[in-house]
Parts: sequence; C-alpha cells; structure tokens
Amino acid sequence: MVVSSESYDGKRPGSRRVYVQGKIHSDVNVSMREIELNPTKKLTGEAESNEPVRVYDCSGPWGDPQENCDVEQGLPALREKWIHDRNDVEEYTGRGVKPEDDGYLSERHIEHTADRNQHRAFPGLKRLPLRGKDHPVTQLWYAQQGIVTPEMEYIAIRENLGRDQVAEKAEGDRMALGHQHSGQCFGANIPEYITPEFVRDEVASGRAIIPANINHPELEPMIIGRKFLVKINANIGNSAVASSIQEEVEKMRWATQWGADTVMDLSTGKNIHATREWIIRNSPVPIGTVPMYQALEKVNGKVESLTWDIFRDTLIEQAEQGVDYFTIHAGALLRFIPMTARRATGIVSRGGSIMAKWCLFHHKENFLYSHWDDICEIMSRYDVSFSIGDGLRPGSIADANDEAQFGELEVQGDLVKRAWAHGVQVICEGPGHVPMHMIKENMEKQLEWCHEAPFYTLGPLVTDIAPGYDHITSGIGAAMIGWYGTSMLCYVTPKEHLGLPDRDDVKEGVITYKIAAHAADLAKGHPGAQYRDNALSKARFEFRWEDQFNLCLDPDRAREFHDETLPADGAKTAHFCSMCGPNFCSMKITDDVRRYAQEKGLNEEEALIAGMEEKSREFSGRESEIYSKV
Amino acid sequence: MVVSSESYDGKRPGSRRVYVQGKIHSDVNVSMREIELNPTKKLTGEAESNEPVRVYDCSGPWGDPQENCDVEQGLPALREKWIHDRNDVEEYTGRGVKPEDDGYLSERHIEHTADRNQHRAFPGLKRLPLRGKDHPVTQLWYAQQGIVTPEMEYIAIRENLGRDQVAEKAEGDRMALGHQHSGQCFGANIPEYITPEFVRDEVASGRAIIPANINHPELEPMIIGRKFLVKINANIGNSAVASSIQEEVEKMRWATQWGADTVMDLSTGKNIHATREWIIRNSPVPIGTVPMYQALEKVNGKVESLTWDIFRDTLIEQAEQGVDYFTIHAGALLRFIPMTARRATGIVSRGGSIMAKWCLFHHKENFLYSHWDDICEIMSRYDVSFSIGDGLRPGSIADANDEAQFGELEVQGDLVKRAWAHGVQVICEGPGHVPMHMIKENMEKQLEWCHEAPFYTLGPLVTDIAPGYDHITSGIGAAMIGWYGTSMLCYVTPKEHLGLPDRDDVKEGVITYKIAAHAADLAKGHPGAQYRDNALSKARFEFRWEDQFNLCLDPDRAREFHDETLPADGAKTAHFCSMCGPNFCSMKITDDVRRYAQEKGLNEEEALIAGMEEKSREFSGRESEIYSKV
Repeated sequence: MVVSSESYDGKRPGSRRVYVQGKIHSDVNVSMREIELNPTKKLTGEAESNEPVRVYDCSGPWGDPQENCDVEQGLPALREKWIHDRNDVEEYTGRGVKPEDDGYLSERHIEHTADRNQHRAFPGLKRLPLRGKDHPVTQLWYAQQGIVTPEMEYIAIRENLGRDQVAEKAEGDRMALGHQHSGQCFGANIPEYITPEFVRDEVASGRAIIPANINHPELEPMIIGRKFLVKINANIGNSAVASSIQEEVEKMRWATQWGADTVMDLSTGKNIHATREWIIRNSPVPIGTVPMYQALEKVNGKVESLTWDIFRDTLIEQAEQGVDYFTIHAGALLRFIPMTARRATGIVSRGGSIMAKWCLFHHKENFLYSHWDDICEIMSRYDVSFSIGDGLRPGSIADANDEAQFGELEVQGDLVKRAWAHGVQVICEGPGHVPMHMIKENMEKQLEWCHEAPFYTLGPLVTDIAPGYDHITSGIGAAMIGWYGTSMLCYVTPKEHLGLPDRDDVKEGVITYKIAAHAADLAKGHPGAQYRDNALSKARFEFRWEDQFNLCLDPDRAREFHDETLPADGAKTAHFCSMCGPNFCSMKITDDVRRYAQEKGLNEEEALIAGMEEKSREFSGRESEIYSKV
Repeated sequence: MVVSSESYDGKRPGSRRVYVQGKIHSDVNVSMREIELNPTKKLTGEAESNEPVRVYDCSGPWGDPQENCDVEQGLPALREKWIHDRNDVEEYTGRGVKPEDDGYLSERHIEHTADRNQHRAFPGLKRLPLRGKDHPVTQLWYAQQGIVTPEMEYIAIRENLGRDQVAEKAEGDRMALGHQHSGQCFGANIPEYITPEFVRDEVASGRAIIPANINHPELEPMIIGRKFLVKINANIGNSAVASSIQEEVEKMRWATQWGADTVMDLSTGKNIHATREWIIRNSPVPIGTVPMYQALEKVNGKVESLTWDIFRDTLIEQAEQGVDYFTIHAGALLRFIPMTARRATGIVSRGGSIMAKWCLFHHKENFLYSHWDDICEIMSRYDVSFSIGDGLRPGSIADANDEAQFGELEVQGDLVKRAWAHGVQVICEGPGHVPMHMIKENMEKQLEWCHEAPFYTLGPLVTDIAPGYDHITSGIGAAMIGWYGTSMLCYVTPKEHLGLPDRDDVKEGVITYKIAAHAADLAKGHPGAQYRDNALSKARFEFRWEDQFNLCLDPDRAREFHDETLPADGAKTAHFCSMCGPNFCSMKITDDVRRYAQEKGLNEEEALIAGMEEKSREFSGRESEIYSKV
C-alpha cells in the first residue's frame, strides 16, 4: 500500500514533538506539539523571548518525526502493558475472520472477484483478542472502584496543557499572556486544574467517558465530557459507490493530523472488515463504528433478514478488532415510527431507517432495544463504549425538536442507566437540523433525561438552504451547542447531502469543527483555552508573521493566503501587510501609543493623558516615519 | 473596460426575474427572482405541482436577462422621478472633480503617471448633483412627516416576499409548506405582514434606515432594521498594493449577485474617486465608504495634516457622487486612547487609529466629534446615512468588551441622538473579536445606549486561532448577534488578517454571511424566512435534485459537488445519491413509511400502529425492491 508521505512526516512548521511524563505512572508519556516562537523586538532594540506554546496533538506517533511508522506494521501498542498489568483480561482464539465479514461468499469469491485488488488483509501483527474475565474491564468500572488508571493520568496531563501554560507563570508574566475571560458555563464547574483523581471522578459518575477498547492498545487515551475540552469526530468510510482501503486509512491519518479526536469508520459495501483492521492498527485515536452497517451487508442489504444473532456476531467481530465505541440505534422504537410519517423529511438517519424498516416488516419492537442487556454484557468485556444513536433526529429545520425526536431522547436516557448498571461507558447522540433558538432545549433535555451522560451531536445545522456549505451551517450550531455543554461534535464536511468527502473536504470539516470546539471552550471559560488566542494575537500585533502562521489551526493556508499578495520573504518580517500597504498600518499606530505609554512607565490613565501633550510636541517636531509620501 | 460576462448574464439556473407592482405608487416595480420547481412524482404515478419559490434578489438590472446593461453606461435611474417628484431638491454645479480626488497633483500628473491606464473616468452620463433645499431630504424626515415614499412601498413589497408565499395559501396547502417554527426574538416584535406604513413607522422611530442618497438614483431601495430581514455588507476596494478599477466594479457586481445587500468601497491609494464613480453608477445596492480614507490620501497619508476643511470637502465630494452611507469614527475620543495602551492588540480599526494618532499629535479632541453637527448638516441635504464607526473595537478575544470599547459605544449613543435631531438616518458599528458568551452583552448595551438605532457588526469573530478561516470564526458570531438583534452583518472573507480578497473570497464571504443572516432570520421567527428551507428540504426528500440545487444559496457549488461522484444526468433524477449508493437509502425507507400512511389516509397514531401489522404482512410477501442484492 502506497500512501503519500506528504502530510505524515510529522513536520509541522516551527513545531517539535514533546512528551510529558506521568507522576503516578512513570510509563505514561503524553505527546504534545510545542510551537517555538520568535522573540519580540522591543523599541529599545532588545529582544524579549516568547515562551513556546504547547498544543493538544491528535496525530499520535505519526506526528513524531523520531518515530518510523509504517502503515503496513501499524502503530506501537502504547497501552499493552497497562492492560495486561490489570490482570483481568484473557487472550483467546476469537471468532476468526470470515469471508462474509468483507462481503464475500467464500475465500474463492475473494480471489475471483473484481474487487480483488481492493481487498488486502492487514499484513502487520495480528494479536489474539483479549476479553475481560470476571468483571467489566471498563474505565467506568475501574473509576468506580477508585482506581486511577494510567489512561486517566494520561488524560489529566493532556487536558491540563493550556492550564500549565498559564499556571506556571508568576503574576506579572501572566499579564503578558493577556487578559483571560472567565467564561459563562452552563452547569459545568470547570476546575482550574485537572487532577487524575478528577478524571476518575468524572468517569465514575458517567459524566465523562474514556473510549478505549482493550483490543486497541495503539490508542492514546482521551476523554469525552463537558468539563473537559470539547472534542470533535471525523467520519470516514468507503461506500458501495466509491473509494478504497488506502484512501480511508489516509483520511484517518489526515483527519487526526488536523485535530480529529476520534474517527468513525462508516464504511458500507465490500471490504468492511479489512478496511477497519488497517484503520484501527494505525489509529492513535478512538475508532467508532455503526455495527448495523456491517450486519446489513451480511444479509445482502435485506433489512428484514437482520437477526439478533447476526448483529451479535458482528458486535463481537468488531469488539475483537478493537473498535472503541459503537453507535447503536436502540432508541428508535416501534411506537415512534408513525410520528415520522407526518414529518417534512421523515427519518434521515441510516441506522434509524434500518430499524424503522425492520420494525415495520416484523411488526416487532426494535431488537436492539429488546437485546440491550445482552449488548451491554458484550461491550463490558472489551470496554467498548456506547454512543446511543439518534435514529429519529430531524433532517430539516421543519422537523426540529418534534415528538419523535424527543420521544427517542427519553428512551436514550433509560438506556444510559441500564448501560451504567453493566459498567459500560456511554454517550448519547443528538441532532441534526435545528434553528438557533431551539438548540438550547436539546442540551437541557439531554442533560436532564440522560442523567448528564455526555452529549455527542451532529452539527446541528442552523438552516437547510446552503448545501455545499453545510460545514458552516452546522459549525454555527456546533459552536453554540458546545458552549451549552455538548462534549463531542461530529463534523460535517462541505460535501454533506451531496457526495462523499475527499481529502480536502475532510480537512475543511475538521478545521471548521476545531474552530467550533475551541470557540465553545472559550465561551465555557475553559482555563486551558484562551492562551493560544492570546499568543496568536500577540504575534499578530507584533508583526511576527511566522509565529502567527505557526500558531494557526491551519498554518499552511494562512501562509499561502498571505503569500498570494506578498510572496517575498521580507514581507514576513515587515511591519505591514497587504491590506493597508506599507504606508499605513493601524497596528503600527497603536504600537506607537503603546510604546509611548510603556517608555514612560505610565500605568494610570490620568498620567497618560497628562503625558499626551508631551507626545504631541514630540510628534510635531519631526516628520512621521510611518507616513512617508505615497 | 472588459468585464467577464460569465456571471452577469442574469441566468440563474431554473430561475426567472419577476416584478411586483406597488399599490400606492404604480411606478414601484420590485424585482425578485422566481425559482421554478418540478412536480412531485406521487406513488400513484400522478404529478403534483410545486409552486415556484420567490427569493430576495440583490442583483438589480444585472440579474434581469431582459435588460441590456453596460458598465460603461451605468444602470437606469430607477428613483430619479421619485426624487424629483418630491420637489425639495435642486440641481447645482457641484464642486467638480479635482486631480487630488484621485491622488494626483494635476491633470498633467494623471497623464504622465505610470498608473495612467488604471485611471479612466466613468464614460457614462454625468448628472448634475442634487441637494436638498429647505429641509432634510432624508427618508427619516419624510417618515416623520407621515409620508410613505415610493422607497418605503418598494421595501414593504420586498420584505414581504416570503410572507406572501406562506400567506396566500389555504390552511391545507400551508401544511404542504412544512411546519413553521415561531422563533424567539429578543425584544423585536416582527409582524406577520409588512405594510408600507409599518416601514414608515420604523424609519420614523430611527429603528430602521433606508440608505438612499438622492444622487444614487440607480439604487433599488432596501431597509436596515431589526424587525426586517437581516442584511449583509460586502467590503471591496483597491489598496496601495493591489487591484484595479475594473476588478472592483466586477467584485461589486459579483457580490450583489450572490446576495450582498450593501457594498462598502474601502479603496485607498490612487484613483479613489474614479473607482467609486464606476461602482456607484453600476450599483443597484447602497454604497458605503469611510471618507477618512480618501481624506488621508489627500494629505499624502500624513495624519497630522488632516483638517476639518479637507474632510468636509471630501464629504461633499462623495455625497455629490451618491455614496449612501458614511462610516465616521467620531466616537473615538481623546480620553479613550490611553485605555488602549494596555490592550493586547491596541487599536485595530484603521479609522480609529487615524483619529487616535491625530488626537495624540494635536492633543485635541477628535475633530469628527467636534464637527458632528456640521457633518449632520451636510448629510441631511443628500440623505447620506451615518454608520457611526467603532474605532476602538476589540482586535482580539483578550480585548473584548473592555472599557475603551464600551466607552466609545456610549458616545455613539449620544451621536445618534444628535444625528436624529438633524433628520439624518443612522446605524452604529460594532465589534470585532468577541467570545460567544460575551456577544449578547454587546447587543443589549447597544440597544440601550444607542436608543435602538440599528446595529451593524463586523462578525464578531469568536476565536483568534484560525486565520484563513475567519469567514467561519466570524460567521458563528454573526449568526448569533443577528439573532440577538443586529440588523446588518459586515462580511469577513477567508483572507481577513492575511491579504486582499479576490473574487472567490468575496463569494465565500458573501455566502457565509447569507447563511448567518438567514439563520438569524429563522431564529428570530421571521415569517418570511423558513419557506425556503422547507421548499429545499421537500425537494431533497423527494429526490428532486435539480430543484434542490436551484433553491440553494449556491446552486453552482451544490451541483458541482454532487457531480464529482455521480456526474451522469440520470443520477439527478435517481432516487439515491453517492453517500449510501443505490442499494440503500434512508430517505427511501421513510418515503415507504410515509406513503403507506398517506395511502391509508391514516392520520392518527393509533390507527397507524394498528396498520403496521398489515404493512408487515405486505412486506413479507415480496422481495424488497429497494434492497436488491449488492
């Protein structure tokens, strides 16, 4: 498999990879990206250094230039020792891969099919699957036993990143980081500092989850909960119409490089098992799936042929591979289906419509609901987390917040409690298409009805009229619902409603959702959020162009846009930009005002005003050096 | 001047231009775009027609294929008769164009300069300027006299567009338009129907303005106020570094084609007067400027050389040309300047920093403030509206809502009252960079302190960390503040902070802001907003792909994205798309559920559930036609 190395060499401009070691668990080494900054050139000619800025990094070993990663081998098993040290899992033979897992009738079918060159089993290490022995082997169970796992300490260090940047400073230096707003958070008390114990407590209460299948040891632990940084998910996956395993693995790495915190593999059609194996073995972030998609392929797309046995087998197949969370549409009950007939856009969730069709055909209750306890039992043995699907989410502004949607949400709440009783971690999925004034109600009801289990929403899109720009229509809703308390935002790409996202769309979707998530962190008053805004704004104000680019979510685009008008290297150190040209710059003027105040050591307003007269005399006495003749 | 005709042929796919005649004023003919829709194919084989959807159109005569517009001649003078019929204006010689208006020392300088081929005077009709004789000739003054002008009736018809679509329907048919949400509006009572009298009343109270210089008769009247559709402004303009007259005229037409409600010409450098003449003579939308930019060019960029006389002369020059609104930074007072020295990013507004520097140099109060009444006097004679600049707006998250910003806002409020006393229409400009949780405070303070004069904001940007994507970071804030009550949103393009926007950037900025404005209209419960979402969602649900594209804000992009995966013509009538492929489609399943309910005439939930069993039998009896073997 050839993958373009262009984007995976770990080189982000001006950045280096650093690791922070744990204090409880010495083999916890948390990866971060550190952005080096240039010194500020002061009026006196002195240079004042700017401390490097550390940022959260989802790229895993792929982002470390020292690592020699190979997609054919997969990533190192970071968590392997942690998992085995707990002495509560066993290796076993596992169910084995069957041709139908990839949509084929037999091994011969694989060999003879036209898709042969698409199908290639992952060539790297194939470990025996693990499963729990005597009790749930979930982070929730450990947390409830009072155990601080290495995963929890990893997360505490990772989540403190911005706080460390601020906290380590003396009061005077903190001023240099810029004013920090206090934020306005809805019901979530975000602590000044995250301890491993705090992580444990949030997980124990169900308010946060650590998606981390014991069969996905390559994963770098992360947390989803509303007292932590807002996370984003990127969907990838081939379909019956387009794309290959190679493209999907590349999309996963591409998405995590730009900041996807989790990736969902929504593949349909053939080679689902093989595609997923390549993805999981190479993924430093949790992988989610909708197991129903594969189960449906196993019955050749005939919804009516779906059975609990086929679904159960699929759950085990995917749990053994290492999928970290399953979207399961168990809340789309028979009694809600008629409500959707009067909707503008009926049922738009694939999982929801599969279950609706199954319920209609058999005139029976959704079997995911009736087998919920069986499903919990399986998931507790691998620490697969639930993402309870919202199969009846609104597909248009007209259908927002209707009885079908909220009926399902209440059922999701019941399912949360039952999952917790089995020791299984759980998050709930939410809409969809919702106008701005109706977004908050979604969050309020979810918190109340789902017992503060984390909310995971798709957008919501705040209007239907902009296909081609639905990353933006949904980014608006995502930022708002993130502020209100949603823990993870499922990205939407510009191709939503129109086609399958390519590489560029994946990046556009990820960056848009990093914006939404970060805007939400700022609005929530997350103590580890604003330092990056402040560092970037300081760089901008001081015309440190390279620093400004490197601190961006997308340094490549920022540099490219700047260089379209002013390509010369000199322009990146010049005290002007293309917007106003060299002869006039508002920031330059402010700089004059400011340096004047600093020189004089004037901190009081009155003193400053008094001093203005002197400044006025000074200005009068010479030609301004800024405004030379045009 | 050669302008690519690619985008200005008036042909929007599936659309035609229609005009709606006034009832009070028979020569009022309001231009709209009407999108034809295909019929719905019902299960019975019958076709059910879908009524055409009319949408607000900013493109003016350029959008009418019947008109033969020519940039060298300018647009027809739609309002000329209305203006003269009021018998309160006089033609006069005017100040005449001077070489320095375009940045030249003399006529010879124009001839000999290297920029010669850039400078070409507008060749079309040069009318003598008009000015008011005995009283303010502003829409505010007429409104206060109880006069319903043709402009007001034009606006009433234009703003009712979506309401007409809904209101003309019988109750049963209205259901077909889809559920309408009621919205949640902050303090603005949006009427079910807009009458010309309502427009007059809103203008009379100062809660809305109609920017319409008597010397810009080409303009199609529009209104800015929070009980009306949220408007957007697109900035264009050349700079000392780049671009030509031709490009700027093209940008104006391009921006209005995509929906810019007003355009600001922020040109600096040379040829400012000539560029503006070309733009105004060809613009169907109000044109705004920052007169200070030109005044500064007239003193060769030396802020300290600025005088009231030069500024006054520039105001008259631009008022005679037909500029519809002036941004004037009169609220940036001397006493606020020291406050900015302690900011993270000082003063980032160009106008603000010019005045700050002038105040510092002369140690005098801002002369725009001290000459406010003189300025009002001039503007009342041409009906130029004020857009009171926010020269001290925050340039970073760290500086949001600080004392300098709010100090200026209070002064803006005083200036509003004084403008009204002169009969001059006025809006107030707002920030800037503001985290989400601090946005609402801006709106609340502006409403209170500025006496409900319309608010006109730049974004706000909700984070600083995404240069290259600031159309999105600001689109989030714009949608929110629009919902809270802002009347016009000044667009931000992807090039913000990095370079000058090109054509693609202008379009990206306009579409993003149309999304924000429309999302705000939906959230405010604007009765003329949701019908377009409903029509598009209905088309999507019924697989009327062409209708879906044509109803989009950007049909071209939607079609292009769809065709990337499924280019064949047949795919646009097929009941599937590339996301799920032909063998599985969630919308198709819903369609089954829904058609079943409709066939049976079942409207009650119980009846539906009872009927499910029958449906179940029906499904069992045949192979599903949807899920054929993969």
